[in-house]
Amino acid sequence: MAATTSESEKKQEEGAEAEQVVNPWEVSAKGKIDYDKLIDRFGCQRLDQSLISRLHRLTSRLPHVFLRRGVFFAHRDFADILDAYERGDKFYLYTGRGPSSEALHLGHLIPFMFTKYLQDAFKVPLVIQLTDDEKFMWKNLTIEESQRLARENAKDIIACGFDISKTFIFADFSYVGGSFYKNMLEVAKRVTYNQAVGIFGFTGEDHIGKVSFPPVQAVPSFPSSFPHLFSGKENLRCLIPCAIDQDPYFRMTRDVAPRIGCHKPALIESLFFPALQGETGKMSASDPNSAIYVTDSAKDIKNKVNKHAFSGGQDSIEKHRQLGANLEVDIPIKYLTFFLEDDVELEHIKKEYGEGRMLTGEVKQRLVEVLTELVERHRRARASVTEEMVDAFMAIRPLPHMFD
Amino acid sequence: MAATTSESEKKQEEGAEAEQVVNPWEVSAKGKIDYDKLIDRFGCQRLDQSLISRLHRLTSRLPHVFLRRGVFFAHRDFADILDAYERGDKFYLYTGRGPSSEALHLGHLIPFMFTKYLQDAFKVPLVIQLTDDEKFMWKNLTIEESQRLARENAKDIIACGFDISKTFIFADFSYVGGSFYKNMLEVAKRVTYNQAVGIFGFTGEDHIGKVSFPPVQAVPSFPSSFPHLFSGKENLRCLIPCAIDQDPYFRMTRDVAPRIGCHKPALIESLFFPALQGETGKMSASDPNSAIYVTDSAKDIKNKVNKHAFSGGQDSIEKHRQLGANLEVDIPIKYLTFFLEDDVELEHIKKEYGEGRMLTGEVKQRLVEVLTELVERHRRARASVTEEMVDAFMAIRPLPHMFD
Repeated sequence: MAATTSESEKKQEEGAEAEQVVNPWEVSAKGKIDYDKLIDRFGCQRLDQSLISRLHRLTSRLPHVFLRRGVFFAHRDFADILDAYERGDKFYLYTGRGPSSEALHLGHLIPFMFTKYLQDAFKVPLVIQLTDDEKFMWKNLTIEESQRLARENAKDIIACGFDISKTFIFADFSYVGGSFYKNMLEVAKRVTYNQAVGIFGFTGEDHIGKVSFPPVQAVPSFPSSFPHLFSGKENLRCLIPCAIDQDPYFRMTRDVAPRIGCHKPALIESLFFPALQGETGKMSASDPNSAIYVTDSAKDIKNKVNKHAFSGGQDSIEKHRQLGANLEVDIPIKYLTFFLEDDVELEHIKKEYGEGRMLTGEVKQRLVEVLTELVERHRRARASVTEEMVDAFMAIRPLPHMFD
Repeated sequence: MAATTSESEKKQEEGAEAEQVVNPWEVSAKGKIDYDKLIDRFGCQRLDQSLISRLHRLTSRLPHVFLRRGVFFAHRDFADILDAYERGDKFYLYTGRGPSSEALHLGHLIPFMFTKYLQDAFKVPLVIQLTDDEKFMWKNLTIEESQRLARENAKDIIACGFDISKTFIFADFSYVGGSFYKNMLEVAKRVTYNQAVGIFGFTGEDHIGKVSFPPVQAVPSFPSSFPHLFSGKENLRCLIPCAIDQDPYFRMTRDVAPRIGCHKPALIESLFFPALQGETGKMSASDPNSAIYVTDSAKDIKNKVNKHAFSGGQDSIEKHRQLGANLEVDIPIKYLTFFLEDDVELEHIKKEYGEGRMLTGEVKQRLVEVLTELVERHRRARASVTEEMVDAFMAIRPLPHMFD
């Protein structure tokens, strides 16, 4: 994209709406995603420092690196969740994943790493939805394959360290029915086809399975969808950590919620994790070299970072020493911003690299170490997840100590 | 409608498509429904005498009065069902009801009376769907009220005499999930929004709950939707007795069936039972005087028939004796054609009345007797249906003797 930057920047000024597509199935932009414009268009809020400081004070924990670095950068009604928590009212967390591929990449882990932090910090229950039904409808997959992928993905999710005494994982093909189905139709009855087209961009050639899906992702926002967890607690608030491309589902949900006597779910939303080739969208499952997968070997990681990670360094060492790296477009720096926990070291690297004293190769070397350790740790954790553990997390059961 | 008959007949010739609306939610015509045109437009077949004779031979039973009198008049692939039966292959029956009102009228009983005959004649299992979800979405009803109506309607259905060892009754809000939900999405994935608009006439202002409903009514056509009944019998054929306004659902279902490896369901379809005021559509729930309800007293029945049943008799006795009644528009004769079982007596009445020897009052008198007996018998049967019986019919259970 570097060659066309100036042209696309110009176009973006002229017509950012047209140039930037963000919905649950497509994230694309000519040039970088303009998150400020996205916040304006979606109508959510910037997560400002005062909210993060308040979170720090209320939980007595250092805010997660994803908060300190602005990875989770937008929200809807997050202050209401903190108000409720401060009053002594609990809430629950809801996140999820569409199980479209066997191997997760690092971008897929981000909401789960962050959700684990929230669960630990607030000591609240968590429901995790695996939308095997969505993937069956959007991808060329059989139901059986979608269900198998959901179960495999559940192992990666469990490997993120969730507390089984507070966590319920469910896959739609197994769970939809009963109160969940009732809530789906309560939502569906309140969204016209024209509204769905406005929110999701459906066309007449889309099948009706797609049109009927948004309520499925909406209703885990309502406690009554989980009678085994929240019976008698139907007034509990819900906080949804997710990437900002999921916002359309929850704009719809928030519109419907008060009309069915429910709280609007609150949201805390992340940036997209950039592809190795540069920050113009989400990573692509069809290009394995665009992402680091949790199944990549140390050698794979080294090769991918060294060959494919877009560098903001200069063309020659002399020029680099003189001008320094352009940190704004440098993917190794972006990735370290997500995953290098030590704030002091990160600032040091950014300063040295930005001022030309550190070279691209050195930064990439450090990134390879950080990613290799992260991936190795995930792999060890995942290897210890048994089928019985998956069954246990997915069992429809009460969680007696979910608020302890 | 009598005053405008000639005008509307003319219009019907000019533009019958526009004048006649038949879909699951609306049946209306200027003048009488033109069933020949409906058969042409829907693409189903007339149920001819040779099929009825074959049914007689195969089941060794006198064909039901609804067959002898042309009430069930159209079909799709009914011959295939008879072929299979003749080879020794069994099939299953599927019918249903949208539980929109507490009290059923006689028109509502027709598919159930006929389905009971088919179950007895062929000794086959039957699934009965109560679409409480549909009625929640189309009517101004709460889910709880839709579910309550489904259960009340189940009592009327059970009162028709179904064999509990061969019959499974289910309501969608309780049953949707598992294999049923999977089949719903297998169907939904294969119907575009444009196709659904073509079949059902949805508009952009319709809510997405309506758009997502047709697969719910489709999938009881597939044995795999009922693993507790048909596990290992996924290749079983399905025969659906219903009124012809339900044909759109099953045209859609039959289009999808071979693409998911299933038999197309066969259909046997009835005329609409006419309103007391005349044969221009189905009865209207909003006008209690348009129909005889199973809750009507003998006095109600007498009043309704005498006051509201449209007569084909002449204005004066003299004229009537001279010209006879117009049987084509006479509602008492229509109703007797549905419910007076004695073929000889019916022919006698038609002849005497048509030739002016019998008066309207006498025919109405006989109809009141027939309907009062039918309604009284139904009321006695329904009064004996306990909550426990409803639970038993609706229990998710195998039917070990369903083909005996």
